[in-house]
Amino acid sequence: MTNRQIVLDRLPQGDRLAPEHFAAKVVERPVPGEGEVLLRTRYISLDAANRAWMQGATYRSALTSGQVMAGGGLSEVVVSHVPHLKPGDLVFADASWQEYAVLPGKRLVRLPDLKPETHLLSVYGVAGLTAYFGLLECGQPKPGETVVVSAAAGSVGSIVGQIARIKGCRVVGIAGGEEKGRWLTEELGFDAAVDYKSPEFKRQLRAAVPDGIDVYFDNTGGDVFEACLFAMKNFGRIACCGALSSYDGAPPTHGPRGIPGLIVTKRLTLRGFVVMDFDDQRDKALTDLQAWVADGRLKVSEDIIEGLENLPSALIGLLAGENRGKRMVRV
Amino acid sequence: MTNRQIVLDRLPQGDRLAPEHFAAKVVERPVPGEGEVLLRTRYISLDAANRAWMQGATYRSALTSGQVMAGGGLSEVVVSHVPHLKPGDLVFADASWQEYAVLPGKRLVRLPDLKPETHLLSVYGVAGLTAYFGLLECGQPKPGETVVVSAAAGSVGSIVGQIARIKGCRVVGIAGGEEKGRWLTEELGFDAAVDYKSPEFKRQLRAAVPDGIDVYFDNTGGDVFEACLFAMKNFGRIACCGALSSYDGAPPTHGPRGIPGLIVTKRLTLRGFVVMDFDDQRDKALTDLQAWVADGRLKVSEDIIEGLENLPSALIGLLAGENRGKRMVRV
Repeated sequence: MTNRQIVLDRLPQGDRLAPEHFAAKVVERPVPGEGEVLLRTRYISLDAANRAWMQGATYRSALTSGQVMAGGGLSEVVVSHVPHLKPGDLVFADASWQEYAVLPGKRLVRLPDLKPETHLLSVYGVAGLTAYFGLLECGQPKPGETVVVSAAAGSVGSIVGQIARIKGCRVVGIAGGEEKGRWLTEELGFDAAVDYKSPEFKRQLRAAVPDGIDVYFDNTGGDVFEACLFAMKNFGRIACCGALSSYDGAPPTHGPRGIPGLIVTKRLTLRGFVVMDFDDQRDKALTDLQAWVADGRLKVSEDIIEGLENLPSALIGLLAGENRGKRMVRV
Repeated sequence: MTNRQIVLDRLPQGDRLAPEHFAAKVVERPVPGEGEVLLRTRYISLDAANRAWMQGATYRSALTSGQVMAGGGLSEVVVSHVPHLKPGDLVFADASWQEYAVLPGKRLVRLPDLKPETHLLSVYGVAGLTAYFGLLECGQPKPGETVVVSAAAGSVGSIVGQIARIKGCRVVGIAGGEEKGRWLTEELGFDAAVDYKSPEFKRQLRAAVPDGIDVYFDNTGGDVFEACLFAMKNFGRIACCGALSSYDGAPPTHGPRGIPGLIVTKRLTLRGFVVMDFDDQRDKALTDLQAWVADGRLKVSEDIIEGLENLPSALIGLLAGENRGKRMVRV
């Protein structure tokens, strides 16, 4: 009756995340009280945001040393003390990096019985919904427009580009390395890919968007953000989804040039968002995503790693850009 | 039959604008051809944007050395070769810094007979319309919200703050020096003022907006922009109107910290605009502005300097923050 956990042993202090920031621990399996449920973790989602939570309060409180590492995923109900859930039900849960968790049952919602169940964490989970709402609500792309997305081979970016194609846009993905670029164009149907690690990055970007960018979906911030800002067309839109480039290491000492000057002269709109802001439109989004997956226009890429003990290296690797599509760990 | 002009003798190259960048010149008065009109300049509007035009292409082409300094103002028709204008009519014209100009008549529109006519350049001109559209369209303020405006004692800022008050908001103005601050609160009805030149600026700003900022109307960019960005509430809006802090001198080597990270975590919307983007809503805006001026809720501040020869020092002084309200030169 044990519970294996991965603890955030010490918070990184301006250094890059490394295995020694984590520690494995075995504790007693918790027992649910009134109104609570005992959950067994099946898959834990890995996201760049996990690293951002270590830097300070965001849309959730900052993490602290010694706590079980925070994270969400797919869990199975083992014991339920609420009427709307029964053993065997699947739920999304903010269950942290551990095998078992006890949570209040009130906010947990039974997930549909859908195969493969990993899609509940990728295309029908936070990644897919983030791509959907960020692109369509914040980006407002119109057919024929040019859409650029950074971290394009990641869980969100790979879906953003495909939705933009479905909506009739020309799509350019920014990713690290030529191999990822080939994958984007040959497998996912992107019109072009640009390698941000190349010394020729800015020139390549300009060549890929000769008339400028209408919609930029930003996952990275930093130099890539700046390069895209300078390439925006008048009345362009930037959907601000994350700032991956600034999560792992010391906080940046300055921001991109051209702010706010270029926002004015190009009449840009920048809008930041977090997926839960659009909870009221979730059903419509899932209906669309399911239809696109069913007719083959939206390809789902998942990168599944086995074993709770591999969570730290899986997150460190994600921050280094190892993954293609949605990374998760099967527990 | 002469025409006095102020020429942009040489473009500043990363240095601050100074009298030696300009030269006075006397040329022959131009003669209008078919479809043209001869205009006599009455008032020339001075705007921070005049300086931005010297830095490169914006929403208009960059200025070049040797040209008559660009600028708009209020002109009187002297000779007309178009049917819709007759001698004595007043028009807005992009007539440059000179006594007389010949322009195609097609795009010129006769202005209403309104007293004082200087209001056509201030509250009913670019300044008033910029304040109106930037605040109401880009800022979307709601009653009870906190609105902050930078360059608050300037032509646009002084109107932004008063409109925000009319709309039921709490208004904080950022301006240089305690005297301007007193003017904002005692004369224009701002709820509070903060001095960006004070070493205590950031602390003062935080104290003036204890619950954060809902709408920030940015005229300055730079450090003031950054301080306001960090003080924004979730779902706040930033209307990007100009970047006064970066116009006079070398272009900034970096932008504000917190971009794009804070845009995401606070779910901000930043929107840049130029007044002509809202030309189709001009009549409604003018009706509102006239009603507010008529009932005394909107006070108009004008800073009128005499003489074409004083245009260079008037612009240099404006960039240094000498003016209160709308600065213009009577020719």
